[in-house]
Amino acid sequence: MAKKYSVAVVGATGMVGQKMFEVLLERNFPISDLKLLASSRSADTRIKGGGKEYVVEELAANSFEGVDFAFFSAGESISKEFAAEAVARGAIVIDNSNAFRMDQEIPLVVPEVNPESAFAHKGIIANPNCSTIQMVVALQPLQKAAGIKRVVAATYQSVSGAGKEAVEELYEQCRAVLDNSPVPTERIPHKGALKNYQLAFNCVPQIDVFVEDGYCKEEMKMIRETRKIMELPELPITSTTVRLPVVSGHSIALNVEFNQPLSADQARDILGKAPGIVIVDDPKQLAYPMPIDAENDDAVFVGRIRPDHSVKYGLNLWVVSDNIRKGAATNSIQIAELLINN
Amino acid sequence: MAKKYSVAVVGATGMVGQKMFEVLLERNFPISDLKLLASSRSADTRIKGGGKEYVVEELAANSFEGVDFAFFSAGESISKEFAAEAVARGAIVIDNSNAFRMDQEIPLVVPEVNPESAFAHKGIIANPNCSTIQMVVALQPLQKAAGIKRVVAATYQSVSGAGKEAVEELYEQCRAVLDNSPVPTERIPHKGALKNYQLAFNCVPQIDVFVEDGYCKEEMKMIRETRKIMELPELPITSTTVRLPVVSGHSIALNVEFNQPLSADQARDILGKAPGIVIVDDPKQLAYPMPIDAENDDAVFVGRIRPDHSVKYGLNLWVVSDNIRKGAATNSIQIAELLINN
Repeated sequence: MAKKYSVAVVGATGMVGQKMFEVLLERNFPISDLKLLASSRSADTRIKGGGKEYVVEELAANSFEGVDFAFFSAGESISKEFAAEAVARGAIVIDNSNAFRMDQEIPLVVPEVNPESAFAHKGIIANPNCSTIQMVVALQPLQKAAGIKRVVAATYQSVSGAGKEAVEELYEQCRAVLDNSPVPTERIPHKGALKNYQLAFNCVPQIDVFVEDGYCKEEMKMIRETRKIMELPELPITSTTVRLPVVSGHSIALNVEFNQPLSADQARDILGKAPGIVIVDDPKQLAYPMPIDAENDDAVFVGRIRPDHSVKYGLNLWVVSDNIRKGAATNSIQIAELLINN
Repeated sequence: MAKKYSVAVVGATGMVGQKMFEVLLERNFPISDLKLLASSRSADTRIKGGGKEYVVEELAANSFEGVDFAFFSAGESISKEFAAEAVARGAIVIDNSNAFRMDQEIPLVVPEVNPESAFAHKGIIANPNCSTIQMVVALQPLQKAAGIKRVVAATYQSVSGAGKEAVEELYEQCRAVLDNSPVPTERIPHKGALKNYQLAFNCVPQIDVFVEDGYCKEEMKMIRETRKIMELPELPITSTTVRLPVVSGHSIALNVEFNQPLSADQARDILGKAPGIVIVDDPKQLAYPMPIDAENDDAVFVGRIRPDHSVKYGLNLWVVSDNIRKGAATNSIQIAELLINN
């Protein structure tokens, strides 16, 4: 009989945590025992799945006794407080927060891109930012084929990346606008921000807080994490990240300059054979990826592949994926599967 | 007493035509006589403004007898059929359709960018595409300051650019999604398309029909019209155009590479003094342009100005404007004002 593992999900009542639970069952992850952990506020929540009912337990250091894999998605501070506790008790932590991603000692892994780096872990493996994951899945095969000279990314990101309450708020905002009643604004750009904006029928060019040089943190994540994952520490890349009134699925307009010639047809062929990618690219049939079509799918969808004549060797691509699945939950679980299967 | 002019608006019941009527009154355009023209289907519609009621008349060749300025916004085929008729009767046509924009004999004018070219007209002056207008207003001062080497544009376009019925459909779609009822889809990417898609809670990476090389027409308009207006026939520029569930206001993530150094501060200063531009750019105050804030304003709003370290001399900018006003109606009327005032 194949080995089974004791698994914990930290932040089990959050958007990503719930999806982790679903994806673990869906993929038949070899589970001997599953603990759903959350803050005291969410403890005792009952969650059904796979013919069983699970009761959410309050997260504590000793929650990790006997746990093999702990999937964290409860924010940076929880990860900083509890990841080491889990590792000390023998668990491998796969952390979806920003806490450890740029730590040189900690692998930052997208299984389709840098699987080998996962095996160097010392207990913690970081799961990258959602928009980074789908971008590098598309970039890596092209890097191998023609060498990337420069990347310009502009994102079209859904509100699910800002959490369950932000999704609810978007629906409420839409209803309020349609009914001509006051529009609630508490969640965008983020909860507790100096100012909060209406997202319904609008777009907001800020994701996460502003950091340096006028960039917001999401933009810097895309830049720095991509360099780390692709092992191209000097990769010239810039990004603009924008929140849309879309519930699920991030899209990226990706402009890529190459060192060597690469036609749109060649890129389509290469990406079509690459792991984790589905090509949706037929202008004659008006076929291209869209966020509503990507929902609840693990693939990274690529379309609108076309030459960019403004540089010697350039392509434009449109890359869409479910940010809660491949961008968070699924990628985390794929990392654990990678360790199990090797 | 200052001279007054006989004015006609062709397509007066459409989204842009109605806005032209409003803007003409708002700006106190020196009107002696105002004719609102439309197809027989819309004839006899009554439109109120400036303390008067106007009755829409059916468009015919002889509608233009005695007209000084004819503002056309009723689509390409109407422009092709009637613009010459209007010119033959002595009118100056300012045409908002795609019919004449790339005609070498016909000026394509954004008053802040290439006012001088307007005076070379032979009866017809073309008003550029909406997303082109706001982009060139922002690019031209930077071109003068540091010389543009390359532009990568990704757009975030509102549905009002697709007409009144598309706006109505977006609202209906939102209501249907919220109520869990069937979602009507007839207007996006455009009416009569091979396939039509839901725009509510989605984004659609196609505007206008597909033309060559996998580009859609809106993308080619941005490329070709920008080169013509800025008189840079070889300007390296590429574009990705995307429709959002936003009612009013287009946004553009603009990445610009320069021939000479240009800091974000310098660009902010230059653009702040440039005609038609309002800077909204203070990350500490979470201040940046957003489409809902641009609605019903004639300015081109620029923010998120920051260095792009992926090239020697690069900047990112976020450019927002009301596509029906500066992107269409206001720019058309500014062209007429330019002729009157010189």
